[in-house]
Amino acid sequence: MREIYFDNNATTKVDEAVFEEMRPYFCELYGNPSSMHFFGGQVQKKVDEARGRVARLLGAEPSEIVFTACGTESDNAAIRSALEVFPERRHIITTRVEHPAVLTQCRNLVKKGYRVTELNVDGEGRLDLNELRSAVDEDTAIVSVMYANNETGVVFPIEEIGAIVKEKGKGALFHTDAVQAVGKIPLDMPTSTIDLLSLSGHKLHAPKGIGALYLRKGVPFRPLLVGGHQEKNRRAGTENTAGIIALGKACELAHQHMDDENTRVKGMRDRLEKELLALIPAARINGGEAVRLPNTLSIAFEYVEGEAILLLLSEKGICASSGSACTSGSLEPSHVLRAMGVPFTCAHGSIRFSLSRFNTDHEIDTVIAELPPIIRRLRDISPFGRELLK
Amino acid sequence: MREIYFDNNATTKVDEAVFEEMRPYFCELYGNPSSMHFFGGQVQKKVDEARGRVARLLGAEPSEIVFTACGTESDNAAIRSALEVFPERRHIITTRVEHPAVLTQCRNLVKKGYRVTELNVDGEGRLDLNELRSAVDEDTAIVSVMYANNETGVVFPIEEIGAIVKEKGKGALFHTDAVQAVGKIPLDMPTSTIDLLSLSGHKLHAPKGIGALYLRKGVPFRPLLVGGHQEKNRRAGTENTAGIIALGKACELAHQHMDDENTRVKGMRDRLEKELLALIPAARINGGEAVRLPNTLSIAFEYVEGEAILLLLSEKGICASSGSACTSGSLEPSHVLRAMGVPFTCAHGSIRFSLSRFNTDHEIDTVIAELPPIIRRLRDISPFGRELLK
Repeated sequence: MREIYFDNNATTKVDEAVFEEMRPYFCELYGNPSSMHFFGGQVQKKVDEARGRVARLLGAEPSEIVFTACGTESDNAAIRSALEVFPERRHIITTRVEHPAVLTQCRNLVKKGYRVTELNVDGEGRLDLNELRSAVDEDTAIVSVMYANNETGVVFPIEEIGAIVKEKGKGALFHTDAVQAVGKIPLDMPTSTIDLLSLSGHKLHAPKGIGALYLRKGVPFRPLLVGGHQEKNRRAGTENTAGIIALGKACELAHQHMDDENTRVKGMRDRLEKELLALIPAARINGGEAVRLPNTLSIAFEYVEGEAILLLLSEKGICASSGSACTSGSLEPSHVLRAMGVPFTCAHGSIRFSLSRFNTDHEIDTVIAELPPIIRRLRDISPFGRELLK
Repeated sequence: MREIYFDNNATTKVDEAVFEEMRPYFCELYGNPSSMHFFGGQVQKKVDEARGRVARLLGAEPSEIVFTACGTESDNAAIRSALEVFPERRHIITTRVEHPAVLTQCRNLVKKGYRVTELNVDGEGRLDLNELRSAVDEDTAIVSVMYANNETGVVFPIEEIGAIVKEKGKGALFHTDAVQAVGKIPLDMPTSTIDLLSLSGHKLHAPKGIGALYLRKGVPFRPLLVGGHQEKNRRAGTENTAGIIALGKACELAHQHMDDENTRVKGMRDRLEKELLALIPAARINGGEAVRLPNTLSIAFEYVEGEAILLLLSEKGICASSGSACTSGSLEPSHVLRAMGVPFTCAHGSIRFSLSRFNTDHEIDTVIAELPPIIRRLRDISPFGRELLK
């Protein structure tokens, strides 16, 4: 079955051009970039080029890019580093809607005696910046706030947040998990308040298993992985050369396609949203009133189970998601939707469609044709749902 | 220039069959294995198959395999986990010849108040097991001893070591960095004393950026990377699916080729060793009296600089190494050779040839033809070297 893939916030197709770029680095140019011979040296040059390409997408300097294995490693590294840099500070600020790579870590730190403030969001998934302002104090080591939410696509006002951290934080570091934002929202690190930023290859058409941490020049850092001298002593372990080269190419392409993401892809998302709302009663957009990523649609259908919707969509070849892949396996409704106060009857019936530049209008048409009868069928077997259909 | 590659302890060529196995998982079968739809599910099946293949090489159960990004991550995770599992224990035992992924971490822990015993080796790189026996006590959280040394190929008597740890350690965990041993030395975890074992894909013809940690069933563990539920909550982060699938195939092939490594490859290494010793005066095998890996030859040439030898070999297309790629960039002679008491005049002139199943007799002939004149030429420009040539 040919997939109709609307799960790009979970992971993306590797762009063919990205694959071609990395392909020689498996069986032909397989040298270790840290080796002294010509065969390693030529790989080192290509790794340097990739570092430059990633930096360019952020407006950063190549030396500010540290390659990691994934967004989770970048997030973990950023927070643990801050706690080592400021051993006397015992306070961390994050939000209730963060990805588990940040939130689980912070909650584990509570058990170790750290004070963690989880900022609340309103019904549309927006932060109250006054709450942040009162929370930041001289005991705060790091503030970690995601750039855009993976489930709803809600974008936080990162530079306003950073300004508050810089004003009130007495040197507290500001980290953002920008895994969903990079490639969709223009970034310019020289004019930014961000100290550390996480990104992940597989969210922007590079393979799984490669990520990066932007680390502002001059920001003190303690590595999470220690051992060899790779990444200027900031991340030990033999470089994932093919992955790095792929990430570089993917960042170059993301730069070129950013307009497309914000026009054509957004146009498809908006049409999908409008048509589904028109065709399906008791449907609601999660975060619909907030600023959102151009590719993400989180839509709640009252009185149906998200997993049942996904199953029936999957039978039609349509890939979407409830919550995030990283929290799947849990039967609880999404922590993001709960934090937003979305009622259980809606949170359980929420579906995320996340688009990419590889989606087509025809695929949007297919969802618009297939989803309304699925919702009708599921409501028909639910006592509450039948009320709606009357 | 076509490479003549004798640096397989630094990294290896990806086997074409490994590449073909993982290739569809970039641009076609790119789903997230944690996703609920069919498109993720089919990737999950392939990840399960790979886990089984890695397990089979170790005689382990699939559930005992945790995929990581690299050997360094596995090493770091093993040691940090033990310290969290036994918060009251403050003692770690390792060796002076470990890979930096273990040794640097242990030395950092000294600064945090841990007591670290670094076991010594003799002139052939062998451990004194009595020293280990006196060092293990009830305060010991973990003993981390590599299976085989990356620089010299010297193999430690891991099961004897493990027996001492089990006898004297009051529950101390036993970890081995087996990055260089896996695929060359048969392993059978059900009859082994090993609790945790690190392996790395790129040392056995899988790509860089994928590794695994064997974690014996029932051994308590605290994850290094926290976040999503991947790897049964033992390693967060979206699975590097292509890398995992590649590692599975590489382990299957390693199983099939293990005899070849210990016969044909060992034969080539032995011939290279014998011929070089016969042709070059004042040459010496590092660890030559010890049990060694079948593919590794560390040879010292007095009164020459290793880096100069490498440069001249590299000009002939021959890739070898001085020390390890993970410590390159340092001008110090190898910590392994220093621990063995190899005199500076020899340690500086040590070269490592590390073979793989892709090497040929013809390539061995080339080194035997090219290296002796290089050594002669370098000794000719050194005052001490000229003495030797008289």
